Amino acid sequence: MALGEFDLIDRFFRRPSRRSDVLLGVGDDAALLEPPAGRALVAATDTLVEGRHFLHGAPGRSVGHQALAVNLSDLAAMGADPAWALLSLSLPEVREDWLEDFALGFHVLADTHGVELVGGDTVRGPLVVTVEVLGFVEPALALRRSGAQPGDVLFVSGSPGEAAAGLEMLRRGGSMDSDDPLVLRYLYAQPRLELGRALRGRASAAMDVSDGLLGDLGKLCAASGVCARIDLAELPVSDRLLAAHGREASERLVLLGGDDYELLFTLSAAEADRGQAELRRDFPITRIGEIEAGRGVLCERDGLVVQVAGGGYDHFA
Amino acid sequence: MALGEFDLIDRFFRRPSRRSDVLLGVGDDAALLEPPAGRALVAATDTLVEGRHFLHGAPGRSVGHQALAVNLSDLAAMGADPAWALLSLSLPEVREDWLEDFALGFHVLADTHGVELVGGDTVRGPLVVTVEVLGFVEPALALRRSGAQPGDVLFVSGSPGEAAAGLEMLRRGGSMDSDDPLVLRYLYAQPRLELGRALRGRASAAMDVSDGLLGDLGKLCAASGVCARIDLAELPVSDRLLAAHGREASERLVLLGGDDYELLFTLSAAEADRGQAELRRDFPITRIGEIEAGRGVLCERDGLVVQVAGGGYDHFA
Repeated sequence: MALGEFDLIDRFFRRPSRRSDVLLGVGDDAALLEPPAGRALVAATDTLVEGRHFLHGAPGRSVGHQALAVNLSDLAAMGADPAWALLSLSLPEVREDWLEDFALGFHVLADTHGVELVGGDTVRGPLVVTVEVLGFVEPALALRRSGAQPGDVLFVSGSPGEAAAGLEMLRRGGSMDSDDPLVLRYLYAQPRLELGRALRGRASAAMDVSDGLLGDLGKLCAASGVCARIDLAELPVSDRLLAAHGREASERLVLLGGDDYELLFTLSAAEADRGQAELRRDFPITRIGEIEAGRGVLCERDGLVVQVAGGGYDHFA
Repeated sequence: MALGEFDLIDRFFRRPSRRSDVLLGVGDDAALLEPPAGRALVAATDTLVEGRHFLHGAPGRSVGHQALAVNLSDLAAMGADPAWALLSLSLPEVREDWLEDFALGFHVLADTHGVELVGGDTVRGPLVVTVEVLGFVEPALALRRSGAQPGDVLFVSGSPGEAAAGLEMLRRGGSMDSDDPLVLRYLYAQPRLELGRALRGRASAAMDVSDGLLGDLGKLCAASGVCARIDLAELPVSDRLLAAHGREASERLVLLGGDDYELLFTLSAAEADRGQAELRRDFPITRIGEIEAGRGVLCERDGLVVQVAGGGYDHFA
């Protein structure tokens, strides 16, 4: 934490420790942590850049939430229990109200999932936020992208596309203070940690949808060396989305929209028969297709393969 | 790693795993790692912003080196053994030659210290680099800032100020390709991991000097609740520094210059008597003062307390 400006960390981010596995938190050169015996450490990091991953003028509370949520979503996709976070914040200036809001958004989500901020760095620069989250999972139960097999059944959680619809509303001039459910879904999307835990040792493959279902599914298929066949009629299109955009545009939002932090996962046919009902009782999940031998992702409508224009979000495309 | 642009990570940063404790490295939603039993996990993060922590037009190799070195230096200051790193890279554009250079600087230093890159994120944005390093240390032997006591003896390693002198040369138009030792010292300063290990269970307090000796010493004193008294005549001023800047300017560089990644540490008087000679045999360390009751840092010349203008580097000052 050599570059840290300690007053900022102290003032906005240092709080009494709540986890007994934090031996030394914010304030030294590094944090000292006590991982549990026998579990693998899970580590993820994601960076958000103003104007690219969040809008110029986005509320601090939302940015603080998103910066942690995008990382927690990665841990959910591994079936992991999150524990600790590190925060690197590059700020053009010290705006106390914005920082207080940011810290609130970060801490509310952290508290919800028992995560403690144990270190960080604040520097002057363009508004860029990087968070690293650490957690645990039994190595044999960890969810990976690479385990999908022909014959597996493909599921997605929740209502992907809603966050993209909310973002669209904001881009068209909607208020950041709006309490429209789609706007709130974009500003404060919730990572699916409970579902990730429930899938441990059960799903053959999993990943989170953050860059768009179609593009992310393509990555899962590439990692597993398989092909996915999606039935567009099975896509979960929420009533809200349908009311706002109609069927066709909604489908595109579901397939291509990002920032929902939903989980995409596969179950073996046997596991789907056995566990699907139980999972459905606790989580909003939808069967959207199957895995087969081959490469890539096929979208079907009425039994015919159709082309979906666009694809995943590529930062350097 | 939800936002990752995988081609970049794959092309420039993915290499065969060399550590058996990496269960799953670059390429999934998160890394799966196997921490050793009985040791504490040590976690640090630092961010470098172009034009602030490195010069516009700095060679990729140097930036890659520095981004890892500043974090390894934090681990050295804890007496830790580094193991794994995560890299978040925000880039305005994909310049292959620069990225190759960056990866080379990062990997050469990583290999030197047995560190493996296990995950990361590449996004489009201003040039900002965040690295997180994870390592281990026996909890009881970890070095902290807070253990200095009145009567302890204060040491610094190496020749702080040389990196600042090198930076000064570059700011005045010196070539980034210069092989001047001061310029190389700035572009490729080496973290003191071996010294950190040797100080485990021996130093009463330690931290790394990255923002300037005087300012960082102030933080160590604040954390320990003590005062440090430095004898300016004892400061290690290298011949190179002296030849280039004369005594007075050199002293200021030693006290206020950053980016050297040297270690500042305290030994009890008994430990200093017992272990100083042994440490000196292996490492360039200099006794520069004592710890006493009180607050802050006092600088003495010829037995008189003098005022040193300036202070540590504060990113928001």
